[in-house]
Amino acid sequence: MAEKKQVEQITSRDVDFAQWYTDIVKNADLVDYSSVKGCMIIRPYGYAIWENIQSIMDRRFKETGHQNVYMPMFIPESLLNKEKEHVEGFAPEVAWVTHGGSEPLTERLCVRPTSETLFCEHFAKIINSYRDLPVLYNQWCSVVRWEKTTRPFLRTREFLWQEGHTMHATAEDARNETLQMLNIYADVCEHDLAMPVVKGPKTPSDKFAGAEDTYAIEALMHDGKALQAGTSHYFGDGFAKAFDITYKSKDNVDVYPHQTSWGTTTRLIGAIIMTHGDDNGLVLPPAVAPIQVVIVPVAQHKEGVLDRAHALYNELKDAGIRVHIDDSDNSPGWKFAQYEMKGVPVRIELGPRDIEAGKCVIGTRHNLEKSDASLDGIVETVKEKLEEVRQGLYDIAIENRKKHTYDCTTLDEINKALEENGDGFVRAMWCGNEECEDGVKAATGVGSRCIPFDQEVLSDKCVCCGKPAKKLVYWGKAY
Amino acid sequence: MAEKKQVEQITSRDVDFAQWYTDIVKNADLVDYSSVKGCMIIRPYGYAIWENIQSIMDRRFKETGHQNVYMPMFIPESLLNKEKEHVEGFAPEVAWVTHGGSEPLTERLCVRPTSETLFCEHFAKIINSYRDLPVLYNQWCSVVRWEKTTRPFLRTREFLWQEGHTMHATAEDARNETLQMLNIYADVCEHDLAMPVVKGPKTPSDKFAGAEDTYAIEALMHDGKALQAGTSHYFGDGFAKAFDITYKSKDNVDVYPHQTSWGTTTRLIGAIIMTHGDDNGLVLPPAVAPIQVVIVPVAQHKEGVLDRAHALYNELKDAGIRVHIDDSDNSPGWKFAQYEMKGVPVRIELGPRDIEAGKCVIGTRHNLEKSDASLDGIVETVKEKLEEVRQGLYDIAIENRKKHTYDCTTLDEINKALEENGDGFVRAMWCGNEECEDGVKAATGVGSRCIPFDQEVLSDKCVCCGKPAKKLVYWGKAY
Repeated sequence: MAEKKQVEQITSRDVDFAQWYTDIVKNADLVDYSSVKGCMIIRPYGYAIWENIQSIMDRRFKETGHQNVYMPMFIPESLLNKEKEHVEGFAPEVAWVTHGGSEPLTERLCVRPTSETLFCEHFAKIINSYRDLPVLYNQWCSVVRWEKTTRPFLRTREFLWQEGHTMHATAEDARNETLQMLNIYADVCEHDLAMPVVKGPKTPSDKFAGAEDTYAIEALMHDGKALQAGTSHYFGDGFAKAFDITYKSKDNVDVYPHQTSWGTTTRLIGAIIMTHGDDNGLVLPPAVAPIQVVIVPVAQHKEGVLDRAHALYNELKDAGIRVHIDDSDNSPGWKFAQYEMKGVPVRIELGPRDIEAGKCVIGTRHNLEKSDASLDGIVETVKEKLEEVRQGLYDIAIENRKKHTYDCTTLDEINKALEENGDGFVRAMWCGNEECEDGVKAATGVGSRCIPFDQEVLSDKCVCCGKPAKKLVYWGKAY
Repeated sequence: MAEKKQVEQITSRDVDFAQWYTDIVKNADLVDYSSVKGCMIIRPYGYAIWENIQSIMDRRFKETGHQNVYMPMFIPESLLNKEKEHVEGFAPEVAWVTHGGSEPLTERLCVRPTSETLFCEHFAKIINSYRDLPVLYNQWCSVVRWEKTTRPFLRTREFLWQEGHTMHATAEDARNETLQMLNIYADVCEHDLAMPVVKGPKTPSDKFAGAEDTYAIEALMHDGKALQAGTSHYFGDGFAKAFDITYKSKDNVDVYPHQTSWGTTTRLIGAIIMTHGDDNGLVLPPAVAPIQVVIVPVAQHKEGVLDRAHALYNELKDAGIRVHIDDSDNSPGWKFAQYEMKGVPVRIELGPRDIEAGKCVIGTRHNLEKSDASLDGIVETVKEKLEEVRQGLYDIAIENRKKHTYDCTTLDEINKALEENGDGFVRAMWCGNEECEDGVKAATGVGSRCIPFDQEVLSDKCVCCGKPAKKLVYWGKAY
């Protein structure tokens, strides 16, 4: 299939993290650049990861009663302008369509940066009675935000995402939905992506344009920087009022419904890379790995090797495992490096002596360990190994986060912790004033990430102004 | 769940087909209009049909070795201009992005109307050796063509589709791929959508912009108009030359690879409506029906009815059948009308007397027949009924096509056949000249649809000019 190309040495993760990331994205065949500045081509291996994420998320959405829809990709300027805070947040970074064919448009259209306005226009038509609520919609699509600086998966002018948009009879229902979806995101990240996250509201200055409350899940990357991996917003009835969406209550009174939206994006692939990758390349959590197990026949020219390897392939495939066999004429050593670069969680080596002994060699990507395993009951062994990788990845990530989470009570402590131990999550108390949020950032370089649900009291004083503290906040440098 | 709204009477199919279509699209909750002119909102029930079509197609693509990717939605003007015929075909109908935020772009970008140019730019980078071939890619996305007149699903400014793009070492390989994908489309249409199609090349005047050959599947709608349901193109090496894509052969010679592309769209939903729908609403082929079976409890307030209905629901659901139970307080009659409008293939009614007798009433949507069925072995019965609906729909469609296919040897015969029997497929011989193609259309109103693979000789003379005929052609009025 593939030409025998050299598996290139990538930059060491600890030497230059940014270059290491770029090397992985390229060498694991995840992405290619195009002549469309700031946009990425997602190659088959990268897209297959996204399809697996989609499939897991979509199942969770449907299990909780959500339905998929598709809204137009364009938003007329007048529609975008309907909710004041929302348009102020997004107008500076949208792409404008001004011509259809050779004709100028009478009203310019923006390419959707997010679709609250389109959903609201539709909700106004389909919501009439309390019986119509809740409306629980989601869509999978691409959106465009005209970013100045871009990096594959992390920040691109076009990206793929899902955006959930829901309407509820009461504020309480909408708040529950907001948290339910945040919890689903956290659960998928922690379990399926083996990536620990901190959950909680953003500070008021960091809310989504038009939202009353924005909640986020924040993950710590291997380099100690924070990445926002998903957000869930509670809108109250602000958009409902702007778009004149009302429903008749049981008592026949016109009421504004309460709204949420929530989203995750292809950025999650960037998060996977930066949480689990190492100097040999990508390391993929089994739940989203396009190839969960690769079989590498050894001395495959010898009689019976390929036959037995293919029998093994079929056995694993029939068990629902995503398995690949590489019987190309590349050397086993080349293949090992290749599938390590691609982050395949489990590798099976099978040679003539193994076959004779009724065994194979099975290796796990996250710790590069290998051991013998009987070919009898190999399906169970593989499943155990996949779970071992998942748990192993999670443990490593938790360990890294522990090592790079610093409890601080003064700005000096923050600077000292960052200087001595490198970037990480800073946990410190906050009085609730935006000036102090800015003050922390100016003095130390870390910004507020979220106000964790799991509150503790590290001190009774704000880390910045020394006045009474209200909340424990996670601070960090952000992607 | 839903408010008790009247199931509205729709326009009769034979009175006003266009209005009937619009009524179904609206009353079956498939689509809503938005303030974005010419674009549609695909509602949950419509989108679920698309998801089912996607799932069937995607499995077929992957089984034949294709991989999904994602290309940017924008194409720089200079890139679109690279292949002359292609840009001439598409430039008049593209939407142009001219501004990012408040800044004018240095080069305007079109929103992709199709992605040959983007794929070719990428192919030039990833194809180097004969070992890299074939490259078999597909993407699911939305595309934009600035149409003047639009109708939901049939012709909209934005629509959802899949576009396959492949590169091959030889012309023969590429031609085989072109036909393989055409055959997969035909197979999905005939089997899963129960919609008979005619397969064959388009005439040269009707080829895709930049293609050497365009093949299509053509279906006859209930009103006798033809609908192009999918196309597959053979490009030769024209784009490869324009984009400087070459590979080293085994003999180390630089060779241009040969290319294909192929696509199907949300238009297929329009085809389903117009092939199978009737005066009671939509009729869905079971393979793509979001709800395959609806259970309507009768006298559900009586003891044991809802329990038994839910047990039946679980039994069918566990068997992998897409089943819905409507235990709302709407009347059974309202429910019957509602699920007929939505085209649910099989309906089960279950009341106290049925339960006592260990049976239910099972009805099929395509012929509105119903009969008793034992609750023992109901899963098998339902599966048989679903297959009965599929086969029944196909038979009705074939019958309609037979009735509205006219073999003609003169222009007068064409006009007479259309006048006496209504619109339909005209089968008539053609000399191969574009003037005669135009001549037939001018004299009779029917245009060439395709040159069927199944050739017959109806006459040795061209139906238009009377000179020696080369091919049997299907003619029709097109959507």
